[in-house]
Amino acid sequence: MTAYGVLGTGVVGQAIAHKLTSLGHEVGMGTRDVAAARSRTEQGQAGAQPLASWLAEHPHVELATFADTIAASEILINASAGPASVEVLRSARMEDLENKILIDVGNPLDFASGQLDLVPGVTDSLGETLQREFPNVRVVKALNMVSASVMIDPGAVGAGEHTAFIAGNHDAAKTVVTTLLFSFGWRDVRDLGDIAAARGMEAYLVLWARARETFGTSMFSVKLVV
Amino acid sequence: MTAYGVLGTGVVGQAIAHKLTSLGHEVGMGTRDVAAARSRTEQGQAGAQPLASWLAEHPHVELATFADTIAASEILINASAGPASVEVLRSARMEDLENKILIDVGNPLDFASGQLDLVPGVTDSLGETLQREFPNVRVVKALNMVSASVMIDPGAVGAGEHTAFIAGNHDAAKTVVTTLLFSFGWRDVRDLGDIAAARGMEAYLVLWARARETFGTSMFSVKLVV
Repeated sequence: MTAYGVLGTGVVGQAIAHKLTSLGHEVGMGTRDVAAARSRTEQGQAGAQPLASWLAEHPHVELATFADTIAASEILINASAGPASVEVLRSARMEDLENKILIDVGNPLDFASGQLDLVPGVTDSLGETLQREFPNVRVVKALNMVSASVMIDPGAVGAGEHTAFIAGNHDAAKTVVTTLLFSFGWRDVRDLGDIAAARGMEAYLVLWARARETFGTSMFSVKLVV
Repeated sequence: MTAYGVLGTGVVGQAIAHKLTSLGHEVGMGTRDVAAARSRTEQGQAGAQPLASWLAEHPHVELATFADTIAASEILINASAGPASVEVLRSARMEDLENKILIDVGNPLDFASGQLDLVPGVTDSLGETLQREFPNVRVVKALNMVSASVMIDPGAVGAGEHTAFIAGNHDAAKTVVTTLLFSFGWRDVRDLGDIAAARGMEAYLVLWARARETFGTSMFSVKLVV
């Protein structure tokens, strides 16, 4: 049993916290304003459940501030909106981040121009930004290439015959994340190398978003074929 | 039998011209300076054969200027370096482009910063740029997501069980290209919609380049799994 801290209460945070709980892990969920989040009865974005009812269904998940969730957790999951993620981590006390694994499932999507853009372009990435801003955290990029439903139930598409890419600078951290992904049901986990590989994993979202639009579903993934 | 004009003499142009010839098509190859290209005895980039010896092995492929190749061909393949492609097409007489299919296999890669970047970013693409600059051409984006070897021999990886994405504004042109891809050995061709989907297909190159580096081979592809 590991104490996981899920940073973000949206559809991705809810999915991952649910999965971790169902696997018997201790799970905390971080948010900016606990009282506001707890009273949220409206539907969230991208199919997120109203947080009040989600929390009622998950009584063992403790909702707290980002800082308190980070302090109480051994492994962190960045499920906050990509452009906000640095600020989310900055709200932690530095010593509470020390040597912790941060699984970054975020995407730095920017729709300000009316079109999908990537905040860091393709010569940088959210994963690298987090690693650079918080050098004592062990960032592992993972799961950002599929929808929340597929992240936690890879068997729901193609009988699970597809690939999870991961990237990060710390081999031991990647081993931990690989084991976690296997426990989620992933069977083909491919290590792309250091955290700079997050560029490719995030750039892929441009293809993913078009495929979702054209095929009318987010229940898909890709398999690396060699 | 269709007259194909392959624009570019590098590894991609050589591979596609070779394949088209082996399938019995009439093939022209376009270059900037015919005399200079014909006398090229040094190895090309990315494993391209010295052009002089390649031409000797392919006596039925006629090397000509870009303009003359375009004039003589029914279907064009853009196998020029992405950042040069607009200039290559501009060298044609406008009436020689009218209503022709242009299969754009190019990638607008920019290494000027020392890192892989995309000239148009991810809110535009080479495919869209060509369609915008040459509105009377029917641009179909295809094959840019794999190496030259895989383009023409998809069975060489994963027994051919992977996906070719295509995009373009003209359905009839996409049908022609799909038929051509089947003749190359592709079995799973997925239409992503209009030419703006080229953004995702080109952005994917950032992931592709890292995978090639990490796995030490360009003999791979991805399969869309639903």
